[in-house]
Amino acid sequence: MEKRIITISREYGAGGLPVGRMIAEKLGIPFYDKKLVEHVAEESGFAPKFIEEHGEHSPSGSVFSYAFAPQGVPGVMNGLSTSDYLWNVQCNVILQLAEKGPCVIVGRNADYILKDRKDVLNVFLHADIPSRVARVLEANPDEKNPEGRIAARDKRRRLNYQHYTGRTWGMSQNYHICLDTTTLGYEQCAEIILNAVKNSK
Amino acid sequence: MEKRIITISREYGAGGLPVGRMIAEKLGIPFYDKKLVEHVAEESGFAPKFIEEHGEHSPSGSVFSYAFAPQGVPGVMNGLSTSDYLWNVQCNVILQLAEKGPCVIVGRNADYILKDRKDVLNVFLHADIPSRVARVLEANPDEKNPEGRIAARDKRRRLNYQHYTGRTWGMSQNYHICLDTTTLGYEQCAEIILNAVKNSK
Repeated sequence: MEKRIITISREYGAGGLPVGRMIAEKLGIPFYDKKLVEHVAEESGFAPKFIEEHGEHSPSGSVFSYAFAPQGVPGVMNGLSTSDYLWNVQCNVILQLAEKGPCVIVGRNADYILKDRKDVLNVFLHADIPSRVARVLEANPDEKNPEGRIAARDKRRRLNYQHYTGRTWGMSQNYHICLDTTTLGYEQCAEIILNAVKNSK
Repeated sequence: MEKRIITISREYGAGGLPVGRMIAEKLGIPFYDKKLVEHVAEESGFAPKFIEEHGEHSPSGSVFSYAFAPQGVPGVMNGLSTSDYLWNVQCNVILQLAEKGPCVIVGRNADYILKDRKDVLNVFLHADIPSRVARVLEANPDEKNPEGRIAARDKRRRLNYQHYTGRTWGMSQNYHICLDTTTLGYEQCAEIILNAVKNSK
């Protein structure tokens, strides 16, 4: 069946953003990452900064996180924890975006959220540590501990995925295509994905 | 670095053999699967049928398996279990084959055995159950329980891989390319792998 929606899951620093952008540009379709965060924020009343930081993190259960919850909307969280409430909002936004038309969605467990649609191509990108360190330092030259940052971000994504999907993050069977961006390079990865979309028609 | 050796790990019935054969033919390089088994057999004195059945199976520890061990070669097993002895022989054969020149190797944990070489491209192929059932029935029309056969073979491969490599079978980070052959088709999978080899030059 024709694949119209591409989800890109990725290790931190493995090039999910540049590869996702290349694909969206070549196909002329919307690209959702921070934009998606804004959609979620608008829908939920959560501050964008809070969602960006917690949207893929492990559920903390910390009472402090409630301090950032939507203000002045009595009963909006329906007794859910902040993480669970945010998960529900994210699911709704991603399902709506997919319904709207072809797009590329990076992160946010979109592969799982859209698992009942047949027109979705799920991709996972990974890379070796040296090239991820290089990419983190390129984006944040002042980062003192890029290896620590990578390990922490990956751990949060892994735990969040496992908690909300019951699946193992990065297990090949969850995706149609998994690629090592260090060995293949961003452009070849984008080309493989674009061809898969083209050939699905 | 140029990739000269392609290892293909695969779920049972996911098309590892046809995809591997296509690649080897296109590149004009040797294809090792049952042939590899024969090499191992010659080297070890094990009967080929025994190796074919046990070469990727979980270590059983059964004393009965010793009944199939090489005859008349005192001390050849050096006190190892049959499984461990077979693993050592397989490692040696695969290391030697890789040293000989470019080739395609299907199965036998070759990705792990060749992990110290930089000229190896590691691939994992998976597929959904209906297409694997169809493939099993195509090869064995009399098979009464294809789903059971698939589950049993995958379990053995998974346990064998975990035991001898300490890694998780099918985890995307162990391979450069993982592909869903149901969605992509054998030919497109072969093309992706061939392009990756070509672009590594």
